[in-house]
Parts: sequence; C-alpha cells; structure tokens
Amino acid sequence: MYKLVLIRHGQSQWNLDNRFSGWADVDLTEQGMAEAAEAGRLLKAGGYRFDVAHTSVLKRAVRTLWGVLDAMEQMYLPVVTDWRLNERHYGGLTGLNKAETAAKYGEDQVKVWRRSYDIPPPPLDRASNESVSDPRYANLDPSMIPDTECLKDTVDRVVPYWHDVLAPAIASGQNVVVAAHGNSLRALVKYLDNISEEEIVELNIPNGVPLVYEFDKDLKPIRHYYLGDADAIAAKMAAVANQGKAK
Amino acid sequence: MYKLVLIRHGQSQWNLDNRFSGWADVDLTEQGMAEAAEAGRLLKAGGYRFDVAHTSVLKRAVRTLWGVLDAMEQMYLPVVTDWRLNERHYGGLTGLNKAETAAKYGEDQVKVWRRSYDIPPPPLDRASNESVSDPRYANLDPSMIPDTECLKDTVDRVVPYWHDVLAPAIASGQNVVVAAHGNSLRALVKYLDNISEEEIVELNIPNGVPLVYEFDKDLKPIRHYYLGDADAIAAKMAAVANQGKAK
Repeated sequence: MYKLVLIRHGQSQWNLDNRFSGWADVDLTEQGMAEAAEAGRLLKAGGYRFDVAHTSVLKRAVRTLWGVLDAMEQMYLPVVTDWRLNERHYGGLTGLNKAETAAKYGEDQVKVWRRSYDIPPPPLDRASNESVSDPRYANLDPSMIPDTECLKDTVDRVVPYWHDVLAPAIASGQNVVVAAHGNSLRALVKYLDNISEEEIVELNIPNGVPLVYEFDKDLKPIRHYYLGDADAIAAKMAAVANQGKAK
Repeated sequence: MYKLVLIRHGQSQWNLDNRFSGWADVDLTEQGMAEAAEAGRLLKAGGYRFDVAHTSVLKRAVRTLWGVLDAMEQMYLPVVTDWRLNERHYGGLTGLNKAETAAKYGEDQVKVWRRSYDIPPPPLDRASNESVSDPRYANLDPSMIPDTECLKDTVDRVVPYWHDVLAPAIASGQNVVVAAHGNSLRALVKYLDNISEEEIVELNIPNGVPLVYEFDKDLKPIRHYYLGDADAIAAKMAAVANQGKAK
C-alpha cells in the first residue's frame, strides 16, 4: 500500500492578520512554528519515515517542512522545491484584509471571488507583479507567472505536478511528504478524491496537521485521515472556515 | 567564470566539548547557529545567488545550511543531501575527548592518527556501528558504510561526488553552495588545489565562514578566498588548529 503525507503550513503572520497572502512570501508566526514541530512529533510517534520532501518556494511552507523534519529527526532528507506547489495567486487581493477588500471591491464582488471555482480576483499589473523579477522564478518562462489565479488555475498547475513528479515517486516506492498551502493542497485533494467544483469550496484544510492519503497499487485513494487529536483538528478546520467567512 | 561556495558547519556541541564527532549526529550550539546566520548575511551582502544547495546527512551541516539560506532569503532552494559529504568517520574515537582518547590509546598513538593521512583510527565493531541500522543509510550497500576512516578514505568518497555531482552542476551553469564538514571539505580542497598529503594535514577550515572557489572553463581553480573579516577568520583558523592540538 502506498502513502502520501500532506501538510499545510503552520500559522503565518498574514493568517493571523487575516490578509490574503498568495505568492507574498510571508513567514510563520511562533504558533506556526510550534504547529510544524507538533506535526513532526505526531509523524515521528506514528513511525513515519520519508525518502524525500516536496515543498513550494514560499518560506512559510519551507519553514514548516524544516520544523517537521527537525522534530522527526529526519533533517537528512533531500528537499525538492517547486513553484507549482505555491499558494493560489490572489492577484490584486494580495496583502488586503477583509475590511480593505470590501472597501476596495464591494461585499458582493468579494463573495463571488470567495464562492466561485473559476472566477479569479482582479490581476496585478504586470509591472507591479514582483514575482516577475524574483530570482526564484527566473527559470520560468515569464508567461507562466500568474498575475492572479482562481482555484481552477491552481488545479491546472498542481495536477501536472502530481502526474509528473509525485505519483512516479510514490509508485517507485518512495515515502513522500509534501508541505504546501491551503489552496495548492485543496487542488491536489480535489483531483485525488474527484471532488466537485461545488464541494471543494466547502473543504477546509487545517494549518500544520499531517493529512495521510493511502492509495492502492494504481494510486487510487483508499482513504485519508488526519493525525492528531480529533477535537483539536475539528476546531482548526472551523477556524479556517471562519477565516474564509471573515474575508 | 564558475564559482563554488563551501561552508563548514558552525560550532557543534562536540566542537565545544572538543570531542571527535565523525558520523555522530551532533547538533549546533547557539554560537554555531549564529555563525550560520552570519555566513548567510555575508553571502547576501556579496550578492550571491544559488540554484541548488548540497549538504551531508548530518544535522550540524543541514542546520548550518538552513541558517545560511534563511539569512540569504533563499529558503526556496532545492537541497540535495548525500552521505559522501559526511564528516570523516572517526571509528573508535567517536565521542571521545582528548583526555579520554589519550587515556584509552596513549599519546603516541593519538599523534599518529592526528598527523597521518592514511592511518585510520581503530574501527568500530560492526555490531556497535549505529550507522549500519540508521534509516538514513538504508539505501547504501552495508559494505559502503565505514567503521572508521583516515582522511584518504574520505577523499576517496568526496572526489567522486565532485566528479559525479558537483562539477557537472557547476559546468552546466548552476550556482552551487555546499555545507559540509572540516574533513569532507579538506578532502575536496585537497583534490581541487592538488595539495600534498603532508600539506593537507596543516590546512584548517574555520567553522561557518563562506569559502569561495573560482574556476576557469575547465573547472580548474583560479583562486579561492574566505568572505568576511580577515582577522576574525585568522583567529578562527587558529582555533581549529589548536583544537586539533588539544586532541
């Protein structure tokens, strides 16, 4: 039986401030680092051993991974980083909190962006899109760097990463851990569990909790479950949902 | 012109205690973490940008790399880990300090191990060699896991890593940083600069200071230099030399 462990990064400063982060490279809070360490302790207690770690090129995911590997005593793992695991790009909403977003675009419009699967927020001007000149994206064709994304756009880059990179590694027998983001993980989970566009909107992944997927020999999901205390996880998922509402 | 940046890990707990570490997975001290951050600041101030990082499977090197990447704002780099960058395996000396070593083996014998290029310390019993059952070496043929090493043995695994991995990456235009250990880096430097077996014994690499190699198009070294304050580096190199003497 094959397994894959997914971890959404721990609390970031903009999670705490309730701002849209997207591709902004916001760091973890102290709580976020503690969540990463706790995720690592849960994995260690569960006897998990990995062969390789994958993460985005955003530091809140990388630092979460580091905290997990440190607590697991598996700092020796190779780490693959890829922009395709990045958070959804929030375009013109990046950096705004709920009040600012409503003031700028109106409550009704904000609801559309929150509830829809395929309507992206307004794009950044190319000239003000800092990712275009960021060295971490220097090897990408500039046309691949988004100015905004809806969840569908995120699915369209995460699913190829599954097929090109993650699935072959898992099929070859590697034990893989992925530290990523709320929407890049929702994109992957949507594909793996064939979740509808309507249902995925209601699915919330808590920060810093290991999510284990088990697959059959064809890499079809058999089941999935979170590690840790069920009540604490439920509270975290509710917090994410409320955070969404507060936006 | 091609470059390679080498960094010996910052001060470890057993550097501080003056114990032989070898493959024991000793962590950094607070000073060691500060040295890593300072190395990262020097590299950032020098405008260095890397495409990939290489390190050993020992946490004092990995944590040094993390500190460097964090201070450089380049946490997004992929990290390749390989046992061939590990510290020299100190065999039966592992964990011993100078007084313990002298008491166990005699002063004259200790001098031989310190001064010779090709005489290894007494080997561990296979049964007491914890690396044999360590998951991080599970993909290695057990015959490749040493029970002890002289510096020549370390050269014999580090030089292939140069030819197989580092040199092709550098030749392809990648900017590479390597965070490793006193003896794995001495082994590499011996090869790159064609240093004799006698001279390499006197060469000391300070903890946590970036060492930059510049190469011509055939990857022959043109020059090398440390980044940072020359007096501070000289003091660190003297401290390493004295640490050797104190052993």
